[in-house]
Amino acid sequence: MKIFLSTIEPVRIADALKFLSEEEKVIVINSLPLDSASVVLGETDEQSQEDIVEELESEKLGQLLDEMDSDDAVDILDDLEPDDQEEILAEIDKSSKGRADVLRDLLQYPEDTAGGIMAPELLTVYQCQTIGDALSLFKEANENDKIEDIHNIFVVDKHHILCGLLPLKSLIIYSNRKLVKDVMNSDYQYVPVEEDQEVVAHIVRKYDLYSIPVVDGDKKLVGRITADDILDVIDEEAIEDMSHIAGVTQEEFTEESVLRSVRNRVPWLLIGLFGGIVSATIINFFEDSLKLILALAFFVPVVTAMGGNAGVQSSAIIVKRLATGDIHPQYLLSRLSREIQIAFLNGLICSTFLTLIVTLWRGDFLFGFLIGLALFLVILIATVVGTSVPLILKSLDIDPAIAMGPFVTTSNDVVGLMLYLGIASLFIKFFY
Amino acid sequence: MKIFLSTIEPVRIADALKFLSEEEKVIVINSLPLDSASVVLGETDEQSQEDIVEELESEKLGQLLDEMDSDDAVDILDDLEPDDQEEILAEIDKSSKGRADVLRDLLQYPEDTAGGIMAPELLTVYQCQTIGDALSLFKEANENDKIEDIHNIFVVDKHHILCGLLPLKSLIIYSNRKLVKDVMNSDYQYVPVEEDQEVVAHIVRKYDLYSIPVVDGDKKLVGRITADDILDVIDEEAIEDMSHIAGVTQEEFTEESVLRSVRNRVPWLLIGLFGGIVSATIINFFEDSLKLILALAFFVPVVTAMGGNAGVQSSAIIVKRLATGDIHPQYLLSRLSREIQIAFLNGLICSTFLTLIVTLWRGDFLFGFLIGLALFLVILIATVVGTSVPLILKSLDIDPAIAMGPFVTTSNDVVGLMLYLGIASLFIKFFY
Repeated sequence: MKIFLSTIEPVRIADALKFLSEEEKVIVINSLPLDSASVVLGETDEQSQEDIVEELESEKLGQLLDEMDSDDAVDILDDLEPDDQEEILAEIDKSSKGRADVLRDLLQYPEDTAGGIMAPELLTVYQCQTIGDALSLFKEANENDKIEDIHNIFVVDKHHILCGLLPLKSLIIYSNRKLVKDVMNSDYQYVPVEEDQEVVAHIVRKYDLYSIPVVDGDKKLVGRITADDILDVIDEEAIEDMSHIAGVTQEEFTEESVLRSVRNRVPWLLIGLFGGIVSATIINFFEDSLKLILALAFFVPVVTAMGGNAGVQSSAIIVKRLATGDIHPQYLLSRLSREIQIAFLNGLICSTFLTLIVTLWRGDFLFGFLIGLALFLVILIATVVGTSVPLILKSLDIDPAIAMGPFVTTSNDVVGLMLYLGIASLFIKFFY
Repeated sequence: MKIFLSTIEPVRIADALKFLSEEEKVIVINSLPLDSASVVLGETDEQSQEDIVEELESEKLGQLLDEMDSDDAVDILDDLEPDDQEEILAEIDKSSKGRADVLRDLLQYPEDTAGGIMAPELLTVYQCQTIGDALSLFKEANENDKIEDIHNIFVVDKHHILCGLLPLKSLIIYSNRKLVKDVMNSDYQYVPVEEDQEVVAHIVRKYDLYSIPVVDGDKKLVGRITADDILDVIDEEAIEDMSHIAGVTQEEFTEESVLRSVRNRVPWLLIGLFGGIVSATIINFFEDSLKLILALAFFVPVVTAMGGNAGVQSSAIIVKRLATGDIHPQYLLSRLSREIQIAFLNGLICSTFLTLIVTLWRGDFLFGFLIGLALFLVILIATVVGTSVPLILKSLDIDPAIAMGPFVTTSNDVVGLMLYLGIASLFIKFFY
């Protein structure tokens, strides 16, 4: 087993792990040398990580986390109960004292902020040092094999306040005697430690960066985020958005067990079912109108489908723009008014179309007009709901992405039906 | 204007451009020095790019594209008509002969493959050269300012076949006299030129790479893809997936005009409307059953909502897994069987729940059972549709992501209604 595993790349083992049972996963981890095992644990899917962390002895787990990049180790610690966290940290304390403190510091930051994804390990030089100093610093770090993927050495002043970047290539192109402050890059991007990870991703992408420094409130350098962490963030956020629209959980995109999938998907279906039952109650309430004109029932699917579609269209745009920081509070009203203008025109086009079809089909213009008017109002209301719900959730500090999918669809079904049948009843009262 | 603009970072100008009219965009581009203008054009949103490219004189555009990274220049050329492409390429030919040929070569590759996102500009050394040779090569390239973001120098043999990577740090840590082949990294990832961009993104993310070499069929080195291109790919694909689910176009996530949004969203709404009208026709067909038991109409929203939800859940998972290359043809049947198992259990849970509620509400177990059975079958069929449609589209080489959203929802509405009302009619025939 050990010999067999040693011939396979750790990343491939990490990939294959999801096909094994919990016990088998632990056996694989225990058969690997510590350095490979830590790569496997760091790179495997979230479900496998949970399984392994749950089953592994805390001593072994401590050793593995000690081997790992600290940002990855913190990701794993973050998912544990406080008691278990302390137990593991105590294990790490035994072998490398400072390391556990570094991890404790990192655990303070919320998982989805710059602080939560940064690594505190980085290379710094003072601005009054020389390129030669930076060079020996780099060589030393490289021999100790402590810091990977160095693209920039960070330049600080004597108070550890960030004042520039020294790209790796500076060590090659400048003479050893040059002063760091004379050749450093002083026009650079940085992010505060509390910045949302999606905004960080946006900045890194916009400026095509490979690493970005993280600073505290006094602009003191506290860590760096590398592009590979950003790739993970973007992928994670994309899956999150998609899972919200589709009503599946994020784990489903990585794991395999049927029973887990059922447990994950059924709540969303039950929300849909609940919405359907509320809809049924509403239709029941208008039974008299329906008995009079059964044809009203034919157009219920039109109303629910269109309300859902128009609402999700608006939500998707707003959620995406909120996520990338494209919407500022002062533009909220202008966004809403823009969406309403779009809804007005889309509603007009669809309603005219529906009015024509229904009039031709049933040979009754009044009925056609009634259905068309209802559709117009449903699209308008659905858009207002689809636009406002994410904005409201955001202002309550709840992830606006949960507004997409079953939530907006269901509430628009309900509102749409009440509107449609309400208008219909009024018409019947006056015209029939 | 020129002085004002020169004080602002090009990336910020690129960002602000979308708020301007077409003419204003062109004025801004023309007021900027060539190097800033090319950054602005490369970094701005797709809509602004189109506007500018349309309005700008071909001579100026040629100069701008000549200044740009070749992978970005090709992105812009790709969106032009063949005639316009040739006109611009002829302009580029005038000033830098070889450059236009490089761009012509790149234009052959489909936009969403490794070839479509790679840049052919890179540093290569022969394996028999020394670190000293590599060092002077790097310094020369850096002075000419031709290649940005060098993380690796690529090592080739005399036939230009890729045989290793030389990370930038090798130039710092090894002595000048070392042979490249003795210190190069010969355990590395690479991708064939025709590989799908989403698979490339998956590999880069999995192995935490900063650049990856691209090779042709003979493993000859033809280009490199850097992590910043991969960030763009992941973002683009995420927006694409999201726009398909929500039924909006990708441009909507970046551009501003109300009329354009209407034009983009209305086709999806009309698909929904068409589905609704088909649904109305189906319900019309079962008018007799509905007259007998009006309560059947109450549960139409349940059927359509649940069919849509269950279908989109399956589609989202399948589409994501297809995109990352996680599903191989031989597993198709096992995926389908897995989704059916999930649907079976989810259907059972939801149906039991609905049967209970309807039985209690209407005091009629037979009616409750009928509704529950219909729901069970609708969830099962919707899952099969939601799973198979993306798989079928993929096998026809059509982007499976278009299956999500209105398409699957609408077809499941229609199938679900026929099933529901069909079963209901049969029951009425035998039991009422």
